[in-house]
Amino acid sequence: MSERQRVRFRPREDQYAWTFGGAAPVARLAPGTVLEVFTEDCFAGRVRSERDLVSEVCQMPFLNPQTGPFYVEGAEPGDTLALHFLSIEPARDWAASTTVPLFGALTATHLTALLHDPLPELVWIWELDRQARTCRFTARTGEASVDLPMEPMHGTVGVAPANLEVRSALVPDAFGGNMDTPEMRAGVTCYLGVNVEGALFSLGDGHARQGEGETCGVAVETAMNTVLVVDLLKGRPCPWPRLESDTHIISTGSARPLEAAFRIAQVDLIRWLGEDWGLDQMDAYQLVTQAVEAPLANVCDPNYTSVAKLRKDWLPPAQPMEGMHARLREVSAEGPV
Amino acid sequence: MSERQRVRFRPREDQYAWTFGGAAPVARLAPGTVLEVFTEDCFAGRVRSERDLVSEVCQMPFLNPQTGPFYVEGAEPGDTLALHFLSIEPARDWAASTTVPLFGALTATHLTALLHDPLPELVWIWELDRQARTCRFTARTGEASVDLPMEPMHGTVGVAPANLEVRSALVPDAFGGNMDTPEMRAGVTCYLGVNVEGALFSLGDGHARQGEGETCGVAVETAMNTVLVVDLLKGRPCPWPRLESDTHIISTGSARPLEAAFRIAQVDLIRWLGEDWGLDQMDAYQLVTQAVEAPLANVCDPNYTSVAKLRKDWLPPAQPMEGMHARLREVSAEGPV
Amino acid sequence: MSERQRVRFRPREDQYAWTFGGAAPVARLAPGTVLEVFTEDCFAGRVRSERDLVSEVCQMPFLNPQTGPFYVEGAEPGDTLALHFLSIEPARDWAASTTVPLFGALTATHLTALLHDPLPELVWIWELDRQARTCRFTARTGEASVDLPMEPMHGTVGVAPANLEVRSALVPDAFGGNMDTPEMRAGVTCYLGVNVEGALFSLGDGHARQGEGETCGVAVETAMNTVLVVDLLKGRPCPWPRLESDTHIISTGSARPLEAAFRIAQVDLIRWLGEDWGLDQMDAYQLVTQAVEAPLANVCDPNYTSVAKLRKDWLPPAQPMEGMHARLREVSAEGPV
Amino acid sequence: MSERQRVRFRPREDQYAWTFGGAAPVARLAPGTVLEVFTEDCFAGRVRSERDLVSEVCQMPFLNPQTGPFYVEGAEPGDTLALHFLSIEPARDWAASTTVPLFGALTATHLTALLHDPLPELVWIWELDRQARTCRFTARTGEASVDLPMEPMHGTVGVAPANLEVRSALVPDAFGGNMDTPEMRAGVTCYLGVNVEGALFSLGDGHARQGEGETCGVAVETAMNTVLVVDLLKGRPCPWPRLESDTHIISTGSARPLEAAFRIAQVDLIRWLGEDWGLDQMDAYQLVTQAVEAPLANVCDPNYTSVAKLRKDWLPPAQPMEGMHARLREVSAEGPV
Repeated sequence: MSERQRVRFRPREDQYAWTFGGAAPVARLAPGTVLEVFTEDCFAGRVRSERDLVSEVCQMPFLNPQTGPFYVEGAEPGDTLALHFLSIEPARDWAASTTVPLFGALTATHLTALLHDPLPELVWIWELDRQARTCRFTARTGEASVDLPMEPMHGTVGVAPANLEVRSALVPDAFGGNMDTPEMRAGVTCYLGVNVEGALFSLGDGHARQGEGETCGVAVETAMNTVLVVDLLKGRPCPWPRLESDTHIISTGSARPLEAAFRIAQVDLIRWLGEDWGLDQMDAYQLVTQAVEAPLANVCDPNYTSVAKLRKDWLPPAQPMEGMHARLREVSAEGPV
Repeated sequence: MSERQRVRFRPREDQYAWTFGGAAPVARLAPGTVLEVFTEDCFAGRVRSERDLVSEVCQMPFLNPQTGPFYVEGAEPGDTLALHFLSIEPARDWAASTTVPLFGALTATHLTALLHDPLPELVWIWELDRQARTCRFTARTGEASVDLPMEPMHGTVGVAPANLEVRSALVPDAFGGNMDTPEMRAGVTCYLGVNVEGALFSLGDGHARQGEGETCGVAVETAMNTVLVVDLLKGRPCPWPRLESDTHIISTGSARPLEAAFRIAQVDLIRWLGEDWGLDQMDAYQLVTQAVEAPLANVCDPNYTSVAKLRKDWLPPAQPMEGMHARLREVSAEGPV
Repeated sequence: MSERQRVRFRPREDQYAWTFGGAAPVARLAPGTVLEVFTEDCFAGRVRSERDLVSEVCQMPFLNPQTGPFYVEGAEPGDTLALHFLSIEPARDWAASTTVPLFGALTATHLTALLHDPLPELVWIWELDRQARTCRFTARTGEASVDLPMEPMHGTVGVAPANLEVRSALVPDAFGGNMDTPEMRAGVTCYLGVNVEGALFSLGDGHARQGEGETCGVAVETAMNTVLVVDLLKGRPCPWPRLESDTHIISTGSARPLEAAFRIAQVDLIRWLGEDWGLDQMDAYQLVTQAVEAPLANVCDPNYTSVAKLRKDWLPPAQPMEGMHARLREVSAEGPV
Repeated sequence: MSERQRVRFRPREDQYAWTFGGAAPVARLAPGTVLEVFTEDCFAGRVRSERDLVSEVCQMPFLNPQTGPFYVEGAEPGDTLALHFLSIEPARDWAASTTVPLFGALTATHLTALLHDPLPELVWIWELDRQARTCRFTARTGEASVDLPMEPMHGTVGVAPANLEVRSALVPDAFGGNMDTPEMRAGVTCYLGVNVEGALFSLGDGHARQGEGETCGVAVETAMNTVLVVDLLKGRPCPWPRLESDTHIISTGSARPLEAAFRIAQVDLIRWLGEDWGLDQMDAYQLVTQAVEAPLANVCDPNYTSVAKLRKDWLPPAQPMEGMHARLREVSAEGPV
């Protein structure tokens, strides 16, 4: 496998994509390629201090810049793209989080339209200690300061949507996108159903860490240096994004209200148990009921995202998604990337 | 503390309660009492084999029998009841789970009214190995069999509701009740705001284990022998049920749609950080956003339940709920119960 | 029919009920009785000027006083109570509306928990001209004044709930209750499934008029003098409240989220077309889709209420609910009440 | 005004648009133009008998063909497009309605993911009598046949979305689109905020009639000959689609859950009363609460649509939207179109 192609792509400032679909590919990749990318933070790097309010320094639609899209050779509708994350590492020693007027789970929003004035708009600058692997929170009011573990992830990974659509990079849906799940971490393989020729995937929205639900709508946002393997599962569809780690299979759903997202993820997990473990649907319903973990991903984006996780060692041996994750997780051992 | 009162209560068959509120107390307890109880399973013990369909052997309102209510001396509206679970142990070596027509997260229901016929009604009998601490699932179709860890919990713990209401034992709400969260396990303290004189708490619905969300609506249901300490926090209200373990503080919310349950739990956690850690509301919003765990509890009951968990060791030292959990967790060491 | 029993009941101040279920009957009525009642407004008469803020003059649970409950002789579970409204007339020449902190459709609430402060709390006193049949709105800010037609109705009509429950008079559900639909006007027959012996119905919450959805949560609230005929349909159940006017059959549903309320009402209307017109379910689904009117009732109460209306003259001739409405509408002609 | 430009456009079969945004304009129109168009039905004309099942004769994304888009000269972001419907007339003497697997309000769907099999897939062919202005429903099972009034409307009217998005013609959102409101009838002016240069509006999805909520997801679908006046309100934004008739002002909202759509429409109506009648926000909240009509539009599309209507004669005199409707309604008198 020493002939595995390696591609490095660091976007120029005018090269980011702001949508899934509708943007020309920045590169073509053969399946199996190891891809090294830089991703800018969700503010396009414009929030650098407590004085940089999103409502003043950012402007729609120039939020959540995506690195990509990448055209995957041979990818066609009905296939599944596999993206295995070898590493996701903060590119800076600081990160920013903010409130944004009329955005977030605990405020009136444009979609939860109420007569309230917006909540206060504030910025928190977090210090990242990449040696100690910690993120330091400092309160804006009072003296509190707290170190949380660094757990880097990508909030946004997706392909071009189906049905001729082009969606804002702020949206999660069946094509992936802004799912904001902490499960999208190094060591994980993300499966995305291909809707258009070449798949046209992109990624961004790095978080040094994030709670489940992304309550205020903004995580610990930072630029990332990320290495992933890009591969393709021919002739096997994947209706909603799936993830696989060494320990878990993970289905996702993105919709409103939140129970719709929950149901999509649970139904997909039940179907996955049918596809790859041969379980009867009602038996899978029963087993999932007793065994599933259901941490929330986001309850703030245009669609909410729910996750359904199942430990693989609680299941009979199998080759989920035709053993793709098992193969890709060996790549990291092949040499420096 | 050797004078701590110990009470043992095993209900006669005609002594169960089927509601929160509206039932006469079965015993009076002084704060500090160690209480040993037996709880019957949610089927009132009537589902014992794969032939015992809920729609045939059970009848509303005689589902989810509660052991209680218990009158706590001195409890008044504005106080908070603290229930610390010393042990929750299956009383049988088997448990039952089922589908129930028009009940569950992935089916039409009476509240999600659709034109579909009900899904098939099935019973799964689970074998419990109390030595090995496992629950054995056996598929109804095919040969699959899986051992899952035993993680006993109570689906239902609650007090009499406010506003003169009497609620079915199937309902979770601000008074607690049928929250169906796997967090309600041994070692945890459950805080419930008192709405009526004596608090009138009861509990039931033991689960040998349960996934997050209780997808099909029914967990691994079994009778339990449970030991808890009952205590009282005078003059401190608790608007929604809270839990505390050695490692986490946990807020809950129960409502529909699911995002309403999520928001209630998150807002309560933010307020708790204000009450006991002195954090400013916007700082707490930020910190919770990055640090919270948000596993679902149930997405099947009349109200859905969401949980918001925060690691205590990520916070400055404090005495949450006036140090009640820290005190009660010492009780188990006091002697055999 | 001159022997039709007539009963007049005007509650003493200590005689109101604050719940559905859980209150002792104030009178026993034979089916066929003409009942004259006084109902107090939802504020228990305590909001009389712009200075009377609900948060200061009212106190839970003493909101939405109900006149009743009335025990209907012979009523048993499985029967349906029929209440035909002969007249609903404001008892005063003024009415009050208000905002209430954390209540209403366009504000954070206890169930839509957000971090906003409450909206301003205000009272509007409306002048009722019972000759001209108008309600005069006067703006609190500026000079605007508007006359709207008086269209008196009861926000709250219900029976004791099933399953041993007792519910606040603020709640609408399958037992009726606080549905807040403008359809509950004179000339209409309201059908309620009986859950307990005697049915135990009560009514209140008179509105001189109300928009569809009751957006701010409070209508043009006033005391009412109301005359109704009470009758009973033996052996025919009614799972959710139905109404019938000379022109329409009307199903209702009360739940959250709002689409659940919509679905319940639509499914019930489809089933009603099956029961009384013999339509096949899929044909009824099609016909309802093209013919139904779906005005909202309330989007502010603990459950939201949606209404599904169908013109009877668009259907083949039939005797809905065994011709009950056709019979009861003749009562008004019998003489002065 | 005799010099008013008239444009007639009947699309070739390959000329329909399947999205809002992302399609090249078919014509450029000056503000003030009278436009005559043909619109194909939502099935692209492929459902012509009871044997033509949507799942067999139609294919995503080729559903809901749009006539357009039209480029309106001078239209820029921040302006509002005004489309006044002079006439909407069925182009055929029949129409089709169907059930579609996993689509509709009373069934499991892709977004309300459940474990049920789809409901039966059926076609109903409706006879349209354009003289008598009736639509004849004939039951598939049994002999029932019913004539309903013909009330022609467009389910879909919209402009290109904001934020670089391209949306399926099946979606309603802030850009309009597939709102499916019976209010979109002849005599009405539709206001749409302009998001891109030229506005790029299109329309389609004619319904000979439709109930409120479009319960099964499909109305009485037919091709239409439609005449409208196209005009432009410079420098005045319109955040969500509004309509105006001779009698009513009408706001709309499209979102999930349904209460979100309700809130958007109600908040917009309150703001409209502020903008054009100068009402204080809290006064408008009160007045709307008592005066609004809130019929549902659709509870089946990717976003649900709710409508908020207010009688203009219940308000002080004003020139809503700068008197645009009052001006455009005079056009029909100008001569044959």
